Amino acid sequence: MIPQVAPLDRSGEAALRARIDGKAKPLGALGRIEDLAVQLGLIAGAREPVADRALLMVFAGDHGLNASGVSAYPSQVTTAMVATLLAGRASANAFARAVGAEVQVVDAGVAADLPPAQGLVQAKVRAGSRNAELEPALTAHEVKLALARGAALAALAAESFDVLAIGEMGIGNSAAAALILHRLGPVPLEAAVGAGAGHDAQGLARKRTVLARAAARSAASAPLEVLAEFGGLEIAMMAGAVLGAASAGRALIVDGFIAGAAALAAVRIAPAAADYCVFSHLSAERGHALMLEALGARPLLDLDLRLGEGTGALLALPLVRAAARLLTDVANLDDVLAGRV
Amino acid sequence: MIPQVAPLDRSGEAALRARIDGKAKPLGALGRIEDLAVQLGLIAGAREPVADRALLMVFAGDHGLNASGVSAYPSQVTTAMVATLLAGRASANAFARAVGAEVQVVDAGVAADLPPAQGLVQAKVRAGSRNAELEPALTAHEVKLALARGAALAALAAESFDVLAIGEMGIGNSAAAALILHRLGPVPLEAAVGAGAGHDAQGLARKRTVLARAAARSAASAPLEVLAEFGGLEIAMMAGAVLGAASAGRALIVDGFIAGAAALAAVRIAPAAADYCVFSHLSAERGHALMLEALGARPLLDLDLRLGEGTGALLALPLVRAAARLLTDVANLDDVLAGRV
Repeated sequence: MIPQVAPLDRSGEAALRARIDGKAKPLGALGRIEDLAVQLGLIAGAREPVADRALLMVFAGDHGLNASGVSAYPSQVTTAMVATLLAGRASANAFARAVGAEVQVVDAGVAADLPPAQGLVQAKVRAGSRNAELEPALTAHEVKLALARGAALAALAAESFDVLAIGEMGIGNSAAAALILHRLGPVPLEAAVGAGAGHDAQGLARKRTVLARAAARSAASAPLEVLAEFGGLEIAMMAGAVLGAASAGRALIVDGFIAGAAALAAVRIAPAAADYCVFSHLSAERGHALMLEALGARPLLDLDLRLGEGTGALLALPLVRAAARLLTDVANLDDVLAGRV
Repeated sequence: MIPQVAPLDRSGEAALRARIDGKAKPLGALGRIEDLAVQLGLIAGAREPVADRALLMVFAGDHGLNASGVSAYPSQVTTAMVATLLAGRASANAFARAVGAEVQVVDAGVAADLPPAQGLVQAKVRAGSRNAELEPALTAHEVKLALARGAALAALAAESFDVLAIGEMGIGNSAAAALILHRLGPVPLEAAVGAGAGHDAQGLARKRTVLARAAARSAASAPLEVLAEFGGLEIAMMAGAVLGAASAGRALIVDGFIAGAAALAAVRIAPAAADYCVFSHLSAERGHALMLEALGARPLLDLDLRLGEGTGALLALPLVRAAARLLTDVANLDDVLAGRV
């Protein structure tokens, strides 16, 4: 079941601003961290915001589109990188250690059978999506399954974690994300397609040709249909996670271009979900700036990242924690000036 | 004694780049984190870079200039905020908890007597600088004392911490920092003066007038003379800390406009010190972009911060840790593809 997302109650916003303005610092001197604190305060509602326990969920899936040559890498790399994530030796694991977060890998639709492993959640809907150049990548039922599983996983994670983050691993998924941005932004396909994990001019030209054919196959523009036409399973499941986190009242940190496509789908399904999203960074991937614009989002970081796996989301986590602690840990100026600290 | 800073040995740079290029990720996909990893690798030399144990040193001092009305706040606020920092209830303490760093407060030159307290280092050179509108803020001897004490404190901290960060508390110190930038950038005074902790148009006009008078009093352009003419003690001691950290072979994260002025002075004293500095963020304070340009630095974050205390430096610390772990924790692509993780 796809959860309902209630609009965030904004009635406490003025009080939160006043509370931050009363802290022992010049007015507005913590800039974007103050805005983030307001968002976290609104999400927490009557409770105090906390962002200590953090979970990065890395959703993995393969793409039938890859058979048409949209990526410089073969689909087997998805499986190899899932193994690397599970062994704790991917960039996301390194960054998670650096910031203090747990990592969970979700098999949303990897083409290979993955043996059970600690930290791996088996949620495979099917072994890779179909080739969207030639046919719909997923059935409507598969999309709904992926959304529901993502939502359920986020709801479960919300029981044990204060803040969630989403990232992904899936060779070819910048191609699917470009098609989603094209239809749900909407933006011209030309502006949505980038080099992904890396392409020479010939590879990029091929990617453009294949995606133009995929786009010409269907005029879908509603979010569930767009996910079905173009995939992929990890994107649909991430979209479900966004809806599940919002429904559970948890802030969710969104990684880069592909996680952003999932957030865009989620927000087109339930606009209120945007209030729970923290957009971590502006990726070096072409199209991400337009995607963030379509989401009405201003990213926190700009570090020329284009890796995925949730690496950018992890680097934004300390900012989220700092914003929560601005509200809970910092003294009021009145008390400081009266010697009451 | 002001320590010598040897130029960073860059002979390992190509090997570090190759090592990063061999990691299990697309080439260059971690953008600025890769550049940071190279810097940390060069600083670590034959060792592996580590950035786990981190210390923020907050240098506090008062400014005679404040008697001329360069700040919207009275100097007593410096003492009150030092008490707040020591009580663990300032923004820097909150952010330090958020990122996992220790905080040390250094009395470089607070105008009041501070009682002994846990976390407070007594290093006072004098009770506030003299009024630079009317006379040199510090003697040459006081500048040297401040530099030497800052260097010694950083050298001591380098024994127990992997990475250091500097921030400050000192009402009126954006005025002194503007004068330092003006002379050591050099940049026109007009472009160096900003609103600091906050000013209305009248307050800012007064600050400009006072600083023009201070600048007219002396033509100093050498770093030690500039520090003596314009102060302040916390800036000179931070400059010493930069030299001390570089001399000890430790990366040091520089906060915003005022810590940046200290880094600029340090780099003008010993240009090689720049190689050890990580410039954390672009402050909202006017003049900071020009200061970073004068330092040849590209900041990591841009979050409209203008608080000081080391808050921006703390938010960059997780990026430093992530960069170190990219080198030490991430598997090689060859091993991933061969199933050796």
